[in-house]
Amino acid sequence: MRLKVKILKFLTGKPVCMINEKTAEKMSLHINNRASIRKRKKRIISIVNIVSKIINQDEIAVSDRIVKNLKLKNKDIVNVELAQRPLSINLIKKKLKGEKLTKQEIQNIVRDISNNSLTEAEVAFFISAVYSKGMSLNETKNLIQAMVKTGKQLKLKGKVADKHCIGGIAGNRTTPIVVSICASTGLIMPKTSSRAITSAAGTADVIETFAKVDFSVLQIKKILKKTNACFVWGGALGLAPVDDKIIKIERIVKIDSSAQLLASILAKKVSVGSKYILIDIPYGHSAKVTKKQAKKLKTKFLELGKRFDLKLQVILTGGSQPIGNGIGPVLEMQDIIKVLQRKEDAPKDLEQKSIMLAGKLLEMTGKEKKGQGKKLALKILNSGKAFKKFEQIIKAQKGKIKKLKAGKYAYTIKAKRKNKIKSLNNKLINTLARQAGCPEDKQAGIYLYKKLNQEVKKRDKIMTVYAVSKEKLKNAKKFYYKNKKEMIGF
Amino acid sequence: MRLKVKILKFLTGKPVCMINEKTAEKMSLHINNRASIRKRKKRIISIVNIVSKIINQDEIAVSDRIVKNLKLKNKDIVNVELAQRPLSINLIKKKLKGEKLTKQEIQNIVRDISNNSLTEAEVAFFISAVYSKGMSLNETKNLIQAMVKTGKQLKLKGKVADKHCIGGIAGNRTTPIVVSICASTGLIMPKTSSRAITSAAGTADVIETFAKVDFSVLQIKKILKKTNACFVWGGALGLAPVDDKIIKIERIVKIDSSAQLLASILAKKVSVGSKYILIDIPYGHSAKVTKKQAKKLKTKFLELGKRFDLKLQVILTGGSQPIGNGIGPVLEMQDIIKVLQRKEDAPKDLEQKSIMLAGKLLEMTGKEKKGQGKKLALKILNSGKAFKKFEQIIKAQKGKIKKLKAGKYAYTIKAKRKNKIKSLNNKLINTLARQAGCPEDKQAGIYLYKKLNQEVKKRDKIMTVYAVSKEKLKNAKKFYYKNKKEMIGF
Repeated sequence: MRLKVKILKFLTGKPVCMINEKTAEKMSLHINNRASIRKRKKRIISIVNIVSKIINQDEIAVSDRIVKNLKLKNKDIVNVELAQRPLSINLIKKKLKGEKLTKQEIQNIVRDISNNSLTEAEVAFFISAVYSKGMSLNETKNLIQAMVKTGKQLKLKGKVADKHCIGGIAGNRTTPIVVSICASTGLIMPKTSSRAITSAAGTADVIETFAKVDFSVLQIKKILKKTNACFVWGGALGLAPVDDKIIKIERIVKIDSSAQLLASILAKKVSVGSKYILIDIPYGHSAKVTKKQAKKLKTKFLELGKRFDLKLQVILTGGSQPIGNGIGPVLEMQDIIKVLQRKEDAPKDLEQKSIMLAGKLLEMTGKEKKGQGKKLALKILNSGKAFKKFEQIIKAQKGKIKKLKAGKYAYTIKAKRKNKIKSLNNKLINTLARQAGCPEDKQAGIYLYKKLNQEVKKRDKIMTVYAVSKEKLKNAKKFYYKNKKEMIGF
Repeated sequence: MRLKVKILKFLTGKPVCMINEKTAEKMSLHINNRASIRKRKKRIISIVNIVSKIINQDEIAVSDRIVKNLKLKNKDIVNVELAQRPLSINLIKKKLKGEKLTKQEIQNIVRDISNNSLTEAEVAFFISAVYSKGMSLNETKNLIQAMVKTGKQLKLKGKVADKHCIGGIAGNRTTPIVVSICASTGLIMPKTSSRAITSAAGTADVIETFAKVDFSVLQIKKILKKTNACFVWGGALGLAPVDDKIIKIERIVKIDSSAQLLASILAKKVSVGSKYILIDIPYGHSAKVTKKQAKKLKTKFLELGKRFDLKLQVILTGGSQPIGNGIGPVLEMQDIIKVLQRKEDAPKDLEQKSIMLAGKLLEMTGKEKKGQGKKLALKILNSGKAFKKFEQIIKAQKGKIKKLKAGKYAYTIKAKRKNKIKSLNNKLINTLARQAGCPEDKQAGIYLYKKLNQEVKKRDKIMTVYAVSKEKLKNAKKFYYKNKKEMIGF
């Protein structure tokens, strides 16, 4: 049926349309059915909502996602019809039962996620199937290939390098520092990052405190030409977009299967054309993985690296506490600036880890001899070149470095008596920051004054929690007092 | 924040609201956040959509579900605030990781499903967690209790009994016969049934060929008072409604974990107050379960029966072929009437199985001595009392017994040569009936002339397929010829 588009600026984060109940009846469309909406050759699958007012019988209101995808204008005519139940649902069931999927089957699932044929609940079933039943290396490789194939690819000249941390450690925002150091030696570093999944912030969330992170492939190429590097959000780029859709739903329950983790990371790297890749796997008590799991993951990364013909190295790092003092977009950026500007009060752990990672990459890419990378990295940092490079990138991303302020509602936790920090649980600290509003509220977060095993005197500050609303600060406080024993150890 | 309700007759099947983007900003509400909407003491959790037109800053548009739940009128004032992320999501994650859930934790999840705090994707994660990781008997018991508690309960006097088959066998419509026999001895049998999910018909679909099945709890009590029994659809009654919500999402992938199967069946039985319960588990090649699985399920049923202080028995029956001749609402009802009216051509297998089940129930409830139940059941059947009781129930459900006709488009399959029926695959026969239009087209279905291992001569009739449209008959024929080898064995 041909319907006239009515654009309401209808934001839902997914394809949703509204049609008149009479039209729905005519088409035998029921609530939560899928409709296929087509304009010329472009097609999108949408969930159907039914209204009896506002939308006339010959009209269809479409959400922002559909407008963008089909490039719609008000009063455009689209073709709308009932979409069939996708056959890939049967393949999801197959995986839920623990069976292996073939290359073709994985491609079908990825295609249906890609064109929105699957609902969120269906993708949730797929994610938990992979989480519960795992994937073989071959399945993972096929998943990566399918994800790359359904997206755009950057084709860059020069030595394209990347570093990636599997996450899980609060704070730990080394990327902007490492990239700034390496890019100033001429390495090409097209860094695409995700937003936070389980943590308080992702690199994209942090960079957004200064600059835009949302660019097209064409714009990125221009930025890279100017500066050798970028920090962009991978989500809007169309590089392995299925990965973003999966992450969005994974976020609900904060799970992260090893197959999906590998696929998510490597699909982006293959899509941007990175050749030299350094993977950082922090392990430890409250990290994402134990040492044993870290080693297993390392093997898988190395094996997949070979299959995709990459120069890939994996480094296992200590992850038993947060890195840096700030946790949350603004607070982490403040740490980064302190390191880049060589401030006295820059967090030492963040600085050292960044230098070590940058050093490794400089060695991997032949910019420095083996064993000498760290020295070169420090030299670049001290020379101010890294900060200058960072500034350049931020500027190229239409931003500028400015003074940042944490949320105006703050609560400082102090020691009630002499004690020792016996734990700094990453997961709980991340959750605390999320209760305070992270990552959506950029100014929310935590400033940590102490590190693991540090002695505290009576009335010493342990941390300050920041939020942008009273209510969220209250939520965070409540969470802190309920979990403090496990969070800080007393 | 206080907002004015704008009713748009906005049908989404779940609680969704739309607010103006400026209002959203003020409340730091983001797309797909949850808002709690309150009118006086009633509260509902809703997903937030954001629009920049139609809805003014002081307004909120709410979907049908919210209107109904809070009994809203246009311009009512409601209190809207950011709802916390339900903590039960963490519990779902816990289950996904394979950990056990406590009674309180299960209650929290069920409560959040019940009051719509969890989205469909979140419920999907719960379902697949239970499917992948299983549930202990204690967890299942707690799940059942929580489901019963969040719904209505029938409180009936007298000996309340029930029979239940886990399904999977085409035809096999023993319930109307067993209930009619038992209820005529004074047993109270409040039979709630589902409609077909994957099969050609559910008991509710079959009864609907004569009478209504959609009643309120109050109406059911009246029917039971008149006739001791009823055959109603369980879905709209509000008995363990969380079960219905789970089933709706489970249906997407058509999985059925043993814990959820147990919980679904027993929650309904406990809600209607049944004390004497006979469970029929058909096993076999094309049944839902193998003999081994059937035995395991039996043990679990018996154990849970004890924990709920029920007189529960489980019977394992052969399920390697359909029971009765008819498959599909009208065709199954024709079989039932033939048995109840003691016709010569009544299907013997359906008759014998019904007598056996009724006999067991009569023994369990003390209506007859052990070993003598079948005899009594047959006596009641032969006396015409069972048919009279059935007539009475149908009348109480605003229906009447009338001559039924199968679909006018028919196609009869005959043997091309001497042969033997080597298979009568339940799943394929059910799908064949669905291709012909079951369960929506009540007159569609199959009449089987032969049973498993029966010899057929050249030109012997094997089955007739009925449909109400030429096209559906064509679809069914096509399906038959594509699958005949597996369906009938040659």
